[in-house]
Amino acid sequence: MRIDIITVLPELLKSPFEASILKRAIEKGHVEIHFHNLRNYATNNYKTIDDYQFGGGAGMVMMIEPIDKCISELKAERTYDDIIYMTPDGQTLNQKIANELSLKGNLIVLCGHYKGVDQRVRDLFVTKEISIGDYVLSGGELGAAVLCDAIIRLLPGVLNDETSALTDSFQDNLLAPPVYTRPADYKGHTVPEILLSGNFPKIEQWREEEAYKRTKERRPDLLDE
Amino acid sequence: MRIDIITVLPELLKSPFEASILKRAIEKGHVEIHFHNLRNYATNNYKTIDDYQFGGGAGMVMMIEPIDKCISELKAERTYDDIIYMTPDGQTLNQKIANELSLKGNLIVLCGHYKGVDQRVRDLFVTKEISIGDYVLSGGELGAAVLCDAIIRLLPGVLNDETSALTDSFQDNLLAPPVYTRPADYKGHTVPEILLSGNFPKIEQWREEEAYKRTKERRPDLLDE
Repeated sequence: MRIDIITVLPELLKSPFEASILKRAIEKGHVEIHFHNLRNYATNNYKTIDDYQFGGGAGMVMMIEPIDKCISELKAERTYDDIIYMTPDGQTLNQKIANELSLKGNLIVLCGHYKGVDQRVRDLFVTKEISIGDYVLSGGELGAAVLCDAIIRLLPGVLNDETSALTDSFQDNLLAPPVYTRPADYKGHTVPEILLSGNFPKIEQWREEEAYKRTKERRPDLLDE
Repeated sequence: MRIDIITVLPELLKSPFEASILKRAIEKGHVEIHFHNLRNYATNNYKTIDDYQFGGGAGMVMMIEPIDKCISELKAERTYDDIIYMTPDGQTLNQKIANELSLKGNLIVLCGHYKGVDQRVRDLFVTKEISIGDYVLSGGELGAAVLCDAIIRLLPGVLNDETSALTDSFQDNLLAPPVYTRPADYKGHTVPEILLSGNFPKIEQWREEEAYKRTKERRPDLLDE
């Protein structure tokens, strides 16, 4: 898999890709990540990539021309499955979308900033618009990092123990059950006895019941899907 | 405002806080961010902070003792409004929660990792559990960065133009209308004429209609709230 991220702030995105699971996934060759600084595609000497919005109002808008140049250059080199624009009014990311995207080959992720991109960029180039949730962020960069993390950890070979991802919350529309580790007694707070019983079928049953109970309590909407 | 982030991967969190709006907010003194490396609170020489889960199964669980030590040390120094645990089964973050949290004084944000924290941490110390969306990430670090960004940009004085945040998506349960900037004609693709008319009351009306139309089309659920 290859992901090309177009951004005005490549430096903001640096550390999430240089640590932990994303770092290992890149090092092991499971995924290639390429950052493209949009300012390098500016068409004037001031490296301008944004301008005031037509019709007045606060906030700058990212111009179509530098984005067109950058995307065109990438598309001339290879075929992309999707050109994704990170925006709060996009389709809300969920585990199903992450699962689907993890099967793609080449993706472009365009990070909005300021008031977002010129609408014509969305009309002409973007094939998918994704939001990571119903809140507004300073820019699309953290959204892009979240999207990449959600996708990349699903690639075969990235997690050490593949069953670990399958028992995560959401993969079966259930939240994960409570987990406990040593010590069994911490200042008088003990772990549920069943977990110390060694009776694995019973433990499995307890976990399923707890997962269901937690989902019903916290996210009954997931049970209706 | 002060935010203390407890994590096993402080290096992952570095760059998002060193760029753009978060960097400026910190430099201007609107917010203090402190990272606490959980390994420094490990109680053995191997700096272990996680262990196998009771009852068997894939994935490690973060132990209660180092987290207790870290939180206790922080709480001995000041009072915290909330101790927030980032977890996919928490309350889903939205703009309303971000608005509320932006009014707090001191917050602790605990990042889960691996299979999450020992349930007793959640029962005994955590006052609020937050998820940034219905998908699983490698850890709570990106979630913490997203939460901080969503909150910090709302602090008075952080954004240059305060009206800029007020017209964002979600602040009035409406998605933002389309935006356009120069050139007015890009390879034959023109901006809506109304935006070039200079008739500001009409432009305002057009924007409201477009915002409503987009919300109805993409997120009718927001209109019911």
